[in-house]
Amino acid sequence: MTEYETFDLGDFTLQHGGTLPGAVLAYKTYGELAPDGSNAIVFPTWFAGTHLANEWLIGAGRALDTDRYFVIVPGLFGNGLSSSPSNTAVPNDRGRFPNVTMHDNVSAQHRLVTERFGIERLVLVTGASMGAGQAYQWAVSHPDMVERVAPMVGSPRTSPHNQVFLEGIRAALTADSAFSDGDYDDQPRAGLRAFSRVYAGWGLSQAFYWERLYEQLGFATLEDFLVGFWEANFSDWDANDLLAMIWTWQHADVGLTPGFDGDTVAALASIKARALVLPSERDLYFPPQDEEWSVQHMADARLRVIPGIWGHLAGGGADPEAAVFIDTALRELLAQR
Amino acid sequence: MTEYETFDLGDFTLQHGGTLPGAVLAYKTYGELAPDGSNAIVFPTWFAGTHLANEWLIGAGRALDTDRYFVIVPGLFGNGLSSSPSNTAVPNDRGRFPNVTMHDNVSAQHRLVTERFGIERLVLVTGASMGAGQAYQWAVSHPDMVERVAPMVGSPRTSPHNQVFLEGIRAALTADSAFSDGDYDDQPRAGLRAFSRVYAGWGLSQAFYWERLYEQLGFATLEDFLVGFWEANFSDWDANDLLAMIWTWQHADVGLTPGFDGDTVAALASIKARALVLPSERDLYFPPQDEEWSVQHMADARLRVIPGIWGHLAGGGADPEAAVFIDTALRELLAQR
Repeated sequence: MTEYETFDLGDFTLQHGGTLPGAVLAYKTYGELAPDGSNAIVFPTWFAGTHLANEWLIGAGRALDTDRYFVIVPGLFGNGLSSSPSNTAVPNDRGRFPNVTMHDNVSAQHRLVTERFGIERLVLVTGASMGAGQAYQWAVSHPDMVERVAPMVGSPRTSPHNQVFLEGIRAALTADSAFSDGDYDDQPRAGLRAFSRVYAGWGLSQAFYWERLYEQLGFATLEDFLVGFWEANFSDWDANDLLAMIWTWQHADVGLTPGFDGDTVAALASIKARALVLPSERDLYFPPQDEEWSVQHMADARLRVIPGIWGHLAGGGADPEAAVFIDTALRELLAQR
Repeated sequence: MTEYETFDLGDFTLQHGGTLPGAVLAYKTYGELAPDGSNAIVFPTWFAGTHLANEWLIGAGRALDTDRYFVIVPGLFGNGLSSSPSNTAVPNDRGRFPNVTMHDNVSAQHRLVTERFGIERLVLVTGASMGAGQAYQWAVSHPDMVERVAPMVGSPRTSPHNQVFLEGIRAALTADSAFSDGDYDDQPRAGLRAFSRVYAGWGLSQAFYWERLYEQLGFATLEDFLVGFWEANFSDWDANDLLAMIWTWQHADVGLTPGFDGDTVAALASIKARALVLPSERDLYFPPQDEEWSVQHMADARLRVIPGIWGHLAGGGADPEAAVFIDTALRELLAQR
């Protein structure tokens, strides 16, 4: 049994001019495609995640109901299953993996959706964090194809503060001399550990820690949580893969879509999809204030702030109450014509 | 001309049991001590700062008015001027420098104030960030001596989230193998750079970056700001000194004052000083919500939130409007009997 499937992109031309020979998109589908192709949803993965991290929202009786919808979860380039530094042949391997944009990711996903499945319209594109960035990119790149878009805990353009957060984790990871400019034999363990510990402060709110909610996740002490949750979460990731995804994240901006010449506002204004934007109340690197700005510039957009103190992780199903909020919100969006 | 003076503590006994032989407190005074000793203010330094970082609040016509008050600025242990890993003799040098608490710092400062200057009462103890922690500690350790206390952008106990922030910068600094467990010949440059870049995300608010206020500080681009402000700020610091101060910060809790047996609330309740607590509205690691909690547990405390989007740095005079707010607030506190 295969955990996921792959779509061969051949020699895939990138926005920044290079080519990724033998590029592959990993994906998994859930549910059955209707004969007329009218029930498809695209739900791209987030930073350092595979399709597995999306499954909490998918299934019979859930918002992304497999009795009703055909859900495609394509993996972000760099996630270790789609083309990534860790699985690409010389000379595009490791630190030589080319720079891939959000636009490139969505171009590849568009080929998967149209060429493999013959789908012409999408009921919904949704995603969390970098998945939200891809959802925004879908709505800008293919305005007549995307009926609804629901970006969760993400943004159409990586904000300056978010850039600084990413510079921090990048510098922490690469401060380890074992990183060796990406040509390591063994993973840079100290760098990955620092990366994880820095990430821990950003991934959840101050109040989450004040209330010691990590105890609800089964961790007796703060140190147990840092080791057992954060270090464990990133310890299996390849450092070059993480850096490739960070590059994509740092350069995310729907204004950089061909035709918009860097104008993010114009790109947002071009979206025809009905948008439901779902930031998390206490998200420290995608704060809801930024998404108030995004909503202002779309023709048919509504903001609903996910309540609670789980910060960014609220977008990943970790908080049961936030999970119900998101499930309900998506259900309502899907019920609208 | 000496930039600062020193007070010899001799063999200084520490709260955790060890002794720091030949311990020294660096300090600087401003203004003249009244013959009856009735006009003294103590204003301890913050993390990675010397007396120079405090001078924006001190001087004729400022809140800490040198025409009226005698201001003593004692340096935190580990700040490179007071006893620190970088200036202490073998065998207490470098990574072998003993663990020093907030209580130890205030014990040393108390000796300076009483033994060198014969001061019996303090008009005010104030400080920002770790300086606020020392101000709280003064009010708990010497309740009958401290008339007013004004902790700015700090807390009486390092919160769990703040612990995580500190774990992040600590891990980033020590991920550089050049750190060599503290026995480096040259500073761990990559580690210091990572430390600085991680710190950059925490020191100011998301909105500061969104509004590109670093341009007001003379930096044309975000990268210029990261290099010219943050990396430059920490590049002259000794890694072991930074780690010694981080240890003090992570273990800060007025409840650990002898006699309180870990009870932070009881320690706060024992404060007799009139307290004016000044958190910054958008501080990411000392959020104002935490200080609402602190104020609830003191007998005579008022909370005034410093408005604006300069985050933690608002407590250091970087934002002109916040500087006026703080100056005015301290002036009003000093005018109260």
